[in-house]
Amino acid sequence: MFDVRPVLYVIGLLLAALGIGMLVPAIADIAVGNRDWQVFLAAAATTFFIGLGLALTNRGAPQSLNLRQAFFLTALSWIVIAAFGALPFIYAELGLSFTDAFFESVSGITTTGSTVISGLEDAPPGILLWRSLLQWLGGIGIIVMAVAVMPMLQVGGMQLFRMESSDTSEKILPRAAQIAGALGVLYVGITLICSISLWLAGMSLFEGITHAMTTIATGGFSTFDASIGHFDSALIDAIVTLFMIVGSLPFVLYLQVLRGRPLALWRDTQVQWFFGIATAGVLVMALYQYFSGDATLGSSLRYSSFNIVSIMTGTGYTTTDYDTWGGFSVVLFFLMMFVGGCAGSTSCGVKIFRVQVLYETARCQVQRLIQPHGVFTPRFNHKPIPNSVRDAVMNFFFLFFVCFIALSLCLSAFGLDFITAASGAGSALANVGPGLGDVIGPTGNFSPLPDGAKWFLMLGMLLGRLELLGILVFLSPAFWRG
Amino acid sequence: MFDVRPVLYVIGLLLAALGIGMLVPAIADIAVGNRDWQVFLAAAATTFFIGLGLALTNRGAPQSLNLRQAFFLTALSWIVIAAFGALPFIYAELGLSFTDAFFESVSGITTTGSTVISGLEDAPPGILLWRSLLQWLGGIGIIVMAVAVMPMLQVGGMQLFRMESSDTSEKILPRAAQIAGALGVLYVGITLICSISLWLAGMSLFEGITHAMTTIATGGFSTFDASIGHFDSALIDAIVTLFMIVGSLPFVLYLQVLRGRPLALWRDTQVQWFFGIATAGVLVMALYQYFSGDATLGSSLRYSSFNIVSIMTGTGYTTTDYDTWGGFSVVLFFLMMFVGGCAGSTSCGVKIFRVQVLYETARCQVQRLIQPHGVFTPRFNHKPIPNSVRDAVMNFFFLFFVCFIALSLCLSAFGLDFITAASGAGSALANVGPGLGDVIGPTGNFSPLPDGAKWFLMLGMLLGRLELLGILVFLSPAFWRG
Repeated sequence: MFDVRPVLYVIGLLLAALGIGMLVPAIADIAVGNRDWQVFLAAAATTFFIGLGLALTNRGAPQSLNLRQAFFLTALSWIVIAAFGALPFIYAELGLSFTDAFFESVSGITTTGSTVISGLEDAPPGILLWRSLLQWLGGIGIIVMAVAVMPMLQVGGMQLFRMESSDTSEKILPRAAQIAGALGVLYVGITLICSISLWLAGMSLFEGITHAMTTIATGGFSTFDASIGHFDSALIDAIVTLFMIVGSLPFVLYLQVLRGRPLALWRDTQVQWFFGIATAGVLVMALYQYFSGDATLGSSLRYSSFNIVSIMTGTGYTTTDYDTWGGFSVVLFFLMMFVGGCAGSTSCGVKIFRVQVLYETARCQVQRLIQPHGVFTPRFNHKPIPNSVRDAVMNFFFLFFVCFIALSLCLSAFGLDFITAASGAGSALANVGPGLGDVIGPTGNFSPLPDGAKWFLMLGMLLGRLELLGILVFLSPAFWRG
Repeated sequence: MFDVRPVLYVIGLLLAALGIGMLVPAIADIAVGNRDWQVFLAAAATTFFIGLGLALTNRGAPQSLNLRQAFFLTALSWIVIAAFGALPFIYAELGLSFTDAFFESVSGITTTGSTVISGLEDAPPGILLWRSLLQWLGGIGIIVMAVAVMPMLQVGGMQLFRMESSDTSEKILPRAAQIAGALGVLYVGITLICSISLWLAGMSLFEGITHAMTTIATGGFSTFDASIGHFDSALIDAIVTLFMIVGSLPFVLYLQVLRGRPLALWRDTQVQWFFGIATAGVLVMALYQYFSGDATLGSSLRYSSFNIVSIMTGTGYTTTDYDTWGGFSVVLFFLMMFVGGCAGSTSCGVKIFRVQVLYETARCQVQRLIQPHGVFTPRFNHKPIPNSVRDAVMNFFFLFFVCFIALSLCLSAFGLDFITAASGAGSALANVGPGLGDVIGPTGNFSPLPDGAKWFLMLGMLLGRLELLGILVFLSPAFWRG
């Protein structure tokens, strides 16, 4: 049907890199004398050599991808990396089942952060580091994809960001490499700053590094069952909140700021909307908690801001059991889940720019109702939104809803109750992490769920991470026709 | 700002008709010697003479409405009729509070069917008849509006049905009168057939008439707390199911069938989709119940088909407590709530034609992803869907979601739990009736809710009944500008 060699070539390179990444936890386990180092070394060797083999046997292929190949590469690379990333979880001392290992790996690489592992405080450092590393790699992976691949695929309105950079070339590989370089350096730099900040605020260096990696990736894996709540430090809460926000803004704008356009971030309407929605969510939650309970205003603000930002950005850290704050908070947290961050960030969900496009379209529609002959143009960042983008965004929104419905139904068919099924589906699709309710809520864990439900959640995570259409396109007979 | 006289003239006529309608329950109460006949007579006189006064003082005005006037008339007429319709509930022996009386009246006229009254079996016939009559009048009102007014307002894609009848005239009043005549006769005829069928199936004549009126209106008020479950008759279940479906199909197609196009109903894709979705919902529910519980296949099919059709069409009758069927059924019933029936029927919700338009648009989008230079045209009933309709439908879907979110949040702010707030919001917006959960579920009642929550639910019912934009348009500053 099409030449799979360029696809396998790229996946080979990615696997080889993943294999090298597995040496990091191996070294950590050697340092503390944990036997898991053998597992990591074996997994590293397996992954590296399979990757190298794939790359070498397919290296002669043409370097540019057509559309079908690009879709195929996008979906396949995430699935294959998740599969190899699961190896350490299967063979390490944790003794996870195949399903649980795959779940933890998919949840990691998609930066979701739902976990099936409990007793994290007693887990060896290698496994903890591997979980963080998977999210960190997933984070940079999605940023590069959003900038270099997604606009070409024209998925869910992401072409809006291709037109901004006026890139009409379809040779995605060289461009991906070039952007990945600059973004990679930036990503490492921000992670280092975050690590050091957390270390200075009272974390150990290991805790600082692992949490920095999962913060900037808006992933949310922690090294403690109680998540960031373990530290019970307002300063750490504030630092993590700051870097969750950093991880949710468009990374290309950071590059522009560094290249001498200091107001690029400030002037971007997507960033403005992000802060507007986050502030509104935090204030509403804090005021509700303050007036309905016996918390002080300060503590209401502290816990509301951390947890609302964590859920909205899809990070999924928790510092308290907000599930017990009453019906209003459950509904609010449920809704914030879907919002997400900006396009071109590590966050997931519907995303701010889509909310903007939907709002602008609705505003113009209502005006047109009253003045049928008036001309009203929806705008994004002061430029008219092309019809194709509006269609794609509205369509994405509909498909997001359909996927959410279908996933909720499938989960409930495994016997999950309403709140677990609905919040689990939302949390997976928006790559958040925790759900709501007794089982998978902020203090819960995904391990009690039936295996079938876990596989559907993994599907949801991949759907969400690849902007739905990165997966749904394979359901279309047109994709498979000559 | 604009000439309100034509608006007040029409509202006056509607009120005068409503006043005459109030004589019917008055007669019923006189027949059984209940003192409430005085209340109905007083309310009838008040309503009739205020209506007559309005009509007479404003009758000199021009007969055609401009767009602003049409929006104003649409919203105001439903609110004013609900207000006068509440009079009997306030002053009758039931002793409802002002809020409860208004709630029952809005729930009636919008054909929602949520009730705050319990002990219906002991209520006097006048009140029972008035509740049914309100829904019945609301039902014919919405059919006439959908055919004659909504396409002109271009609300939520309803212009799709204006173009079908190739009507470009903007003189809505004469056209409304003409269509109302034919549809009114048809509506009365179907109600009579339904009444007689129910009577033959074992209901009393009074029960037959009241239930026929609320069935054809897909309203769902019953004269028993246990709803249709009171009769515990498979035959009655089947008849009611049939007429709930009759109430959910496009009434203009019945006229076409009667005028010698017998296949008009059969060939309409909206009708086909309605049956497809209903059948799928019923089968999935019945099979799940059969395989997960100890019900026989026959009983699973009987209870699933009645209750799924009742919720999907927004009728809201119940024959069993499906809330106890487990998590899957809760999720499925929650989703079926939103579907609704066909445009131009008495049902509410998102409506089948919008699901079709959304699906067609999504299908073409996915194809375009794979073949960016291909031409793919979304179609409805074999005709291309105009861009304006696609935009309006996708926009409606987004606004429906936003209204659902906002309403859920407002309800939960009054202390309602997650399932009550979410299902209450959905049930109100889709004009269904019952929600889910312990309080407002199939065996519950809306009276325990706080007054504030009830007012928000009323707002939701009106939003849903007037296709959202019939209300939201007043929030736009553009409406109020000269």
